Amino acid sequence: MSEAAVTLDGWYCLHDFRTVDWTTWKMAPSEERQAAIHEFMALVDKWNTTQSGKNGSHALYTIVGQKADFMMMILRPTMEELNEIENEFNKTKLAEFTIPAHSYVSVVELSNYLPAGEDPYQNPQILARLYPELPKAKHVCFYPMDKRRQGNDNWYMLPMEDRRNMMRSHGMIGRQYAGKVKQIITGSVGFDDYEWGVTLFSDDVLQFKKLVYEMRFDEVSARYGEFGSFFVGNILEEDKVEKFLHV
Amino acid sequence: MSEAAVTLDGWYCLHDFRTVDWTTWKMAPSEERQAAIHEFMALVDKWNTTQSGKNGSHALYTIVGQKADFMMMILRPTMEELNEIENEFNKTKLAEFTIPAHSYVSVVELSNYLPAGEDPYQNPQILARLYPELPKAKHVCFYPMDKRRQGNDNWYMLPMEDRRNMMRSHGMIGRQYAGKVKQIITGSVGFDDYEWGVTLFSDDVLQFKKLVYEMRFDEVSARYGEFGSFFVGNILEEDKVEKFLHV
Amino acid sequence: MSEAAVTLDGWYCLHDFRTVDWTTWKMAPSEERQAAIHEFMALVDKWNTTQSGKNGSHALYTIVGQKADFMMMILRPTMEELNEIENEFNKTKLAEFTIPAHSYVSVVELSNYLPAGEDPYQNPQILARLYPELPKAKHVCFYPMDKRRQGNDNWYMLPMEDRRNMMRSHGMIGRQYAGKVKQIITGSVGFDDYEWGVTLFSDDVLQFKKLVYEMRFDEVSARYGEFGSFFVGNILEEDKVEKFLHV
Amino acid sequence: MSEAAVTLDGWYCLHDFRTVDWTTWKMAPSEERQAAIHEFMALVDKWNTTQSGKNGSHALYTIVGQKADFMMMILRPTMEELNEIENEFNKTKLAEFTIPAHSYVSVVELSNYLPAGEDPYQNPQILARLYPELPKAKHVCFYPMDKRRQGNDNWYMLPMEDRRNMMRSHGMIGRQYAGKVKQIITGSVGFDDYEWGVTLFSDDVLQFKKLVYEMRFDEVSARYGEFGSFFVGNILEEDKVEKFLHV
Amino acid sequence: MSEAAVTLDGWYCLHDFRTVDWTTWKMAPSEERQAAIHEFMALVDKWNTTQSGKNGSHALYTIVGQKADFMMMILRPTMEELNEIENEFNKTKLAEFTIPAHSYVSVVELSNYLPAGEDPYQNPQILARLYPELPKAKHVCFYPMDKRRQGNDNWYMLPMEDRRNMMRSHGMIGRQYAGKVKQIITGSVGFDDYEWGVTLFSDDVLQFKKLVYEMRFDEVSARYGEFGSFFVGNILEEDKVEKFLHV
Repeated sequence: MSEAAVTLDGWYCLHDFRTVDWTTWKMAPSEERQAAIHEFMALVDKWNTTQSGKNGSHALYTIVGQKADFMMMILRPTMEELNEIENEFNKTKLAEFTIPAHSYVSVVELSNYLPAGEDPYQNPQILARLYPELPKAKHVCFYPMDKRRQGNDNWYMLPMEDRRNMMRSHGMIGRQYAGKVKQIITGSVGFDDYEWGVTLFSDDVLQFKKLVYEMRFDEVSARYGEFGSFFVGNILEEDKVEKFLHV
Repeated sequence: MSEAAVTLDGWYCLHDFRTVDWTTWKMAPSEERQAAIHEFMALVDKWNTTQSGKNGSHALYTIVGQKADFMMMILRPTMEELNEIENEFNKTKLAEFTIPAHSYVSVVELSNYLPAGEDPYQNPQILARLYPELPKAKHVCFYPMDKRRQGNDNWYMLPMEDRRNMMRSHGMIGRQYAGKVKQIITGSVGFDDYEWGVTLFSDDVLQFKKLVYEMRFDEVSARYGEFGSFFVGNILEEDKVEKFLHV
Repeated sequence: MSEAAVTLDGWYCLHDFRTVDWTTWKMAPSEERQAAIHEFMALVDKWNTTQSGKNGSHALYTIVGQKADFMMMILRPTMEELNEIENEFNKTKLAEFTIPAHSYVSVVELSNYLPAGEDPYQNPQILARLYPELPKAKHVCFYPMDKRRQGNDNWYMLPMEDRRNMMRSHGMIGRQYAGKVKQIITGSVGFDDYEWGVTLFSDDVLQFKKLVYEMRFDEVSARYGEFGSFFVGNILEEDKVEKFLHV
Repeated sequence: MSEAAVTLDGWYCLHDFRTVDWTTWKMAPSEERQAAIHEFMALVDKWNTTQSGKNGSHALYTIVGQKADFMMMILRPTMEELNEIENEFNKTKLAEFTIPAHSYVSVVELSNYLPAGEDPYQNPQILARLYPELPKAKHVCFYPMDKRRQGNDNWYMLPMEDRRNMMRSHGMIGRQYAGKVKQIITGSVGFDDYEWGVTLFSDDVLQFKKLVYEMRFDEVSARYGEFGSFFVGNILEEDKVEKFLHV
Repeated sequence: MSEAAVTLDGWYCLHDFRTVDWTTWKMAPSEERQAAIHEFMALVDKWNTTQSGKNGSHALYTIVGQKADFMMMILRPTMEELNEIENEFNKTKLAEFTIPAHSYVSVVELSNYLPAGEDPYQNPQILARLYPELPKAKHVCFYPMDKRRQGNDNWYMLPMEDRRNMMRSHGMIGRQYAGKVKQIITGSVGFDDYEWGVTLFSDDVLQFKKLVYEMRFDEVSARYGEFGSFFVGNILEEDKVEKFLHV
């Protein structure tokens, strides 16, 4: 039997980070800017309809610092839909005033290091986690990560039993943050440059730091975690988009 | 006798990734855009003729996320033909509206870790793999890779026997995906920055993740694999090019 | 009990580095440049008011070398305020003539490797360090850093006792520079790409070199420190902004 | 006596890679393009005269993939001449339509791991290798490399005897390709980012892959080789320049 | 007592690398180019006056290859003066036609691994090395470097005695090049991304390669040296500036 943990996979996921080209945006006539905002909000309306129909979900956050100005996180049942949404956005008027800053392609994933005997796809809680409606938390944190394969610190050479035990104790830390931080793990092996994406949601931005810092002392992260860039941001509610883009 | 495995080499291969400059594309007059699309489709027609004549093959895929908008994968008998195709595309009207995003130069390769005594070039199945017609699968996945040479994890210092055994067990995993994933390995030692390119085709995009993830636990990948960027995409059928580029 | 040291967290912090596009700046009419400077100074005035009200702090420094032309360091009680300030600056006339060069998102942090039994939040000295007014020192030095997790040099696998002892001796070095260098540590785990940002202030720029060099021989840095880019600069006093931007 | 091998040094060498900005090139009037090509060919003519006079050599190759469109490889007796040629090209009309893509500065070098007692500078074969006329081979391959200094794999800590033995066996592999691949080693310690540049010439592009791959199993490469980017290309004969640039 | 070697520090140092935008430079009217050159030469005249007054020094070199077109190396008593010179250059007409390519901020430094008992600041030879007039050598070589802190190769964990002995034998190699290569070491801990900058001057460019290569076999470099990018160039004498910029 394979040593690879079985994973449960849900909706496909695109994190799309954009920077506003404020200089050309300001140069555009006011009506053009208005039209661009309306067109974008109409797109968001379509996404809302999809979300209401439980056929996907999305979230809009501004990003703090120069890495990007805002992020669209999109969940859909197929990779084709993600691609269409991306292309549809690229063809909008607003996109003419934004610069691609970063993106990440993945799929909602649950690591099945659970005891056997249960059919996870019959479990409503698991289904809710595979096909989630993204929360309207005040803050978001996104980062990609790998499990290390380096010298004596090679996750993929460990027996499954060891990995399962470590993941269980790792999960314990996460559970202490239940109610404070909602975590969505997306798998990206074969899809993007890291093995997983981690998206955290919280109403208290400091909880991101506490959670990630505490986990760093856990052997799974301390010895086996490799982290990419971190993005942190604030919710961009639909009725705030106009203010955000007002110049 | 040399410790290097003998390889069988087929058609040369260019992966050419492009990003559309949607802003200037939208600014172009409608007739100019139409002309650009027609000129590009005429180029693809020429490639189709080459493919029908078994003198090469090609595939068009859109790419999900910001790494690129589309990819052209081209197989030809000589490096000169790849260069000509690249230059011919660069001189098209459409190219004026695209930005080079990434490329990879390699040659279709079969690693000859097989038992001796067989002349592989007399084997029709092997010939079909060296000079393949690229499948019309719904999805593509591309990534480059190296065999690690680091401290105690140095693939190139292993005895050939060990490498052959590991590759055999590695191949077993791939074989489990027969019918689900078609894999084309291209060698790029001396041609590009990694030692191999891996191109996967499947009608079920999730199989890319399952295959690459399962292999990661195999010693060949776990201890000896170094991976570059991953690109994932959806087939761009010829009759969908116009829609893809419609603005 | 968790092995993670408890941290005390104060104001959120944005380091925002900008490069002036001198060519377009010189092309702008003199009145436009004047208006841009006045608008920027009005923004700084608002920041001064916030600082007077003890609701935040800020500092302006020019940066030596091509990494950036100037840096704005901003402290505020919430991540939302940092984001607003950043967006407000991005919408100014001056921003049209600057290029984002680098940024760093963090929160003022005190590492609580102190003896137990004291409630740090009752300590006025600690409060003054969590919510500091940035000094008007002649020079600034900024760099981000990680604690190493590599082979036998893995900070996060050490027992807390060892970490506490090493940090104490590390702190001793810093204390020798009391009165010469003021140091503000900001935590960025979950917020940006390194785990901490270090901002040093001094009237004698050579003290940065002496301090960082001496610390490098201390085990905490020698074995466990990983450093990012270093930025060094000179104070940009408000009445010198016009001269700095005069062309 | 020093542990460093003595090297023999010949002509200085500049690899200059350029990408054509096809969009602006196509926008130029036909006469301007013609003038640009003629001016460039006149420059090449001057280089031909230098080559006939045995005062240097040069080669023109197109590059496959997006790393560059073409490469000029220039050999000259002094670093000043390389600089002048580079500046002269930069001031041409054609250069206005090209973008610098990569360059490498080095000097033709022979590693003197030979038995003592011979004065190499009296040896006509050695002189021919130090001041070579570049071959008109159909294909070129260029890559830079370092000898590794990492943990137990530290080339520069080995006794000279060991290095000499390994280099001798390494050279054996190269010799098997005599007549198929011509190899020019250039030293770049103190001149550019790697320690050596390797330029291979062959009429059969597949020989690059075979040679580099076979060498990778040799201890010198397997344990001690660090490789930079690989560039592969096809000869651009003078009478093909016009066709190459025809739009 | 601290394990850090005491350093002697002299003038602050800025290496400022620039690339000429030849295309826009050629488009400028001839009088504008003349004015730009005259303005730049007036700036150099001011630097000459400073140098005559022993209040600083400077050097101009063209750089071979695409990393930059020329380098200005500036020494001054304060970091503020470096910043002013940089800003003054940025505001010139010539700067409108140059692109920042690289820079490095440091301070002239002598490592005090010398026997005790001597007051180095009373030593005229040491003062001449801390406040040097840069030589008018035909060639320059610049590179930054770190002392390694990796596994068993950790310079900063060695006893001072061992470091002193290794540095002494390292210095021996340098001394063999006395009269052939002049070396200026600048410290950049706390100022820029590496710990030191090395600037070599010689009338024979090949001596850079010989010196750096020979040193690489010395344990200090072999086990403990980490090197950044290398820049090599030719002197740009004041009366050659016009020719260099002539188009």
